[in-house]
Amino acid sequence: MNILKTQVAIIGAGPSGLLLGQLLAKQGIETVILERVTGDYVLGRIRAGILEQGFVDLVREAGVAERMDREGEVHEGFEIAVNGQTTHIDLKGLTGGKVVVCYGQVEITKDLMDARAAAGLTTYYEATKVQPHHVKSEQPSISFEYQGEQYELQCDYIAGCDGFHGVSRQTIPAELRTEYERVYPFGWLGLLSDTPPVSEELIYCKHDRGFALASRRSATRSRYYLQVPLTDKVEDWTDAAFWEELKQRLPPQAAAALVTGTSLEKSIAPLRSFVCEPMQYGRLFLVGDAAHIVPPTGAKGLNSAASDVATLYKIMQRVYQQGDQECISQYSPIALRRVWHAERFSWWLSNMLHNYRDMDLSDMKSGTFSRFMDSELDYYLSSDLGRRVIAEQYVGLPYEELAY
Amino acid sequence: MNILKTQVAIIGAGPSGLLLGQLLAKQGIETVILERVTGDYVLGRIRAGILEQGFVDLVREAGVAERMDREGEVHEGFEIAVNGQTTHIDLKGLTGGKVVVCYGQVEITKDLMDARAAAGLTTYYEATKVQPHHVKSEQPSISFEYQGEQYELQCDYIAGCDGFHGVSRQTIPAELRTEYERVYPFGWLGLLSDTPPVSEELIYCKHDRGFALASRRSATRSRYYLQVPLTDKVEDWTDAAFWEELKQRLPPQAAAALVTGTSLEKSIAPLRSFVCEPMQYGRLFLVGDAAHIVPPTGAKGLNSAASDVATLYKIMQRVYQQGDQECISQYSPIALRRVWHAERFSWWLSNMLHNYRDMDLSDMKSGTFSRFMDSELDYYLSSDLGRRVIAEQYVGLPYEELAY
Repeated sequence: MNILKTQVAIIGAGPSGLLLGQLLAKQGIETVILERVTGDYVLGRIRAGILEQGFVDLVREAGVAERMDREGEVHEGFEIAVNGQTTHIDLKGLTGGKVVVCYGQVEITKDLMDARAAAGLTTYYEATKVQPHHVKSEQPSISFEYQGEQYELQCDYIAGCDGFHGVSRQTIPAELRTEYERVYPFGWLGLLSDTPPVSEELIYCKHDRGFALASRRSATRSRYYLQVPLTDKVEDWTDAAFWEELKQRLPPQAAAALVTGTSLEKSIAPLRSFVCEPMQYGRLFLVGDAAHIVPPTGAKGLNSAASDVATLYKIMQRVYQQGDQECISQYSPIALRRVWHAERFSWWLSNMLHNYRDMDLSDMKSGTFSRFMDSELDYYLSSDLGRRVIAEQYVGLPYEELAY
Repeated sequence: MNILKTQVAIIGAGPSGLLLGQLLAKQGIETVILERVTGDYVLGRIRAGILEQGFVDLVREAGVAERMDREGEVHEGFEIAVNGQTTHIDLKGLTGGKVVVCYGQVEITKDLMDARAAAGLTTYYEATKVQPHHVKSEQPSISFEYQGEQYELQCDYIAGCDGFHGVSRQTIPAELRTEYERVYPFGWLGLLSDTPPVSEELIYCKHDRGFALASRRSATRSRYYLQVPLTDKVEDWTDAAFWEELKQRLPPQAAAALVTGTSLEKSIAPLRSFVCEPMQYGRLFLVGDAAHIVPPTGAKGLNSAASDVATLYKIMQRVYQQGDQECISQYSPIALRRVWHAERFSWWLSNMLHNYRDMDLSDMKSGTFSRFMDSELDYYLSSDLGRRVIAEQYVGLPYEELAY
């Protein structure tokens, strides 16, 4: 048995765990990260990359913003198209100057990995059988296997940044946590291609044929999505069929500008809203996907993880710099309030933009929900206040301060 | 068989039918109103009386505003209390000067009846077996029985103002109309009493024990409501039990100020959202409850009827003053857009303010919808924009003009 010691043990070397580690390092707080897979595997996960100002600020505070600031695209707005008719959401104008930054999650993760390596901070990749222990005591630890040997990592606190399927959430006894969930009656078929995007801004398309999203990674790499029935299989969709369907759902000008090409990746993802309460159990904190999942509409997944990181970062600073251990009980209520705002926004945007026409919501007569959502989108797009409400939440609500 | 002739036949002498009749009379357009019950029976229906500016303006245009302007109370705001913690919705401040008027539906109806009688306009009360005919032709008519004799009312157009259970909607063949509906998993227990209201403004209470509403008819007459399970019977509720429960749901200051007394009326009403599309069939127009029902939260029922009246009034003016018969096809789309906005607002406010804690919405895991709505109310009350969105819709969205 190898015994290791650190202050904050972080499970998971995704962007949340890495960002937290980098922030804590800047404050002189020791961390060790345990990651189940290899770094390359982590970097192989394709994810969106619309970053709220709060996220961008955190990355800057962590000192890892150099490439993001150089290569990231500032997006000052986006389009919502309803059966081809577009409304511009001028984020900058509607929020008094706030914007979002388009920079791939893979890129952020890579920058954070490089920074961590350069700083000589410890990460165990391919650490298996990771298991937190004694998290209700003042001396928690994590057991794991690494290169065939047994390890025990003794620590003060554990940050569970290990995603929806990780061990952290399961460490909270089932009878002490409540899990809220909505699984949507459709999925997103995504296609990544090295083709110039149809637009400099994202286009969210509500269409009688189903939702579509024209998104981008860079000036030469596009990411498109189509709402598809959950019964569809990715094999059913040739690239040609994808492009054909996308063209029909895009507004005419975008459809005319569409450059098609071979898919680098094509996959179908289900849409899910999920929240686990509480997000703290003893000295274990759940961060990001470990505690909550949003549907991708509105790009709140990574940003919600970032707001958890921001809260936990403030709490750990207070713990180590002021010796205030009581403040850890603030984590769950503060994190959850903003998590629910992001959950609600993603659910709302998903509901307004997807086609629910042929779907029964069992609490109301067939088609009723679809009509409510048509009216909802009509109101929020045609009212100046409505567009501000969309914009204010899209750029991200402010992070909350600790209560005392 | 007695043959009668008029220009616009109106079925129903409720506030919509009477207001339409009065407005058309001002323009020299003839009307006959057929009403199934007596005038006293119509006046016995207890309904809310929060009037949007648009409604108030219509009543003034109809020349029947004298008593309303004298006795109606201007409400410049209302309160939303969440487990006793109140947020003031300053309607006037948030909307740039718009307010609502509190004046009972019974009073409005009485004023309109008196004005119609004074003008010598024809109303057949206790007209039975009312049945529209040939509404797709240019010569529609209505057959009915009155004091034991058969009548045929020949007319140019028919306004169906005969409520949810009336014959007008049923006149549109079932295969040509779509009915959208949401029935809520709770009801409102209402109590009317001659006691001074707890507050000059309405108080909408979201509470762990269930929704409550402190409403008023005048300085000496109160109307209170409690969210109750649909299984409750009005006989289960003594006055004492009602007051006791109300006190627990009101914010502390209001609870302390509550004056209790004997109920003048006590009843349980289910909550329903309902819309029939289209709202026009040939020369028959559905107006108000004949086409749509809202839950009472937000007081949009009578106000939505008024927006239908406003639209039909504009169309009839154009028909008779400009000879444009084509414009009647605008009625349904124009009326429905605003109807859906009111439906959506009432549904939304109902969802945010009621207790859904122990209720499953079958499309999501138990409790999830309740959490979404807690967050929704938190966002809309704590954001300046959010409060404006509530206020703008509470005072009433503007009426739409005809398209051409």
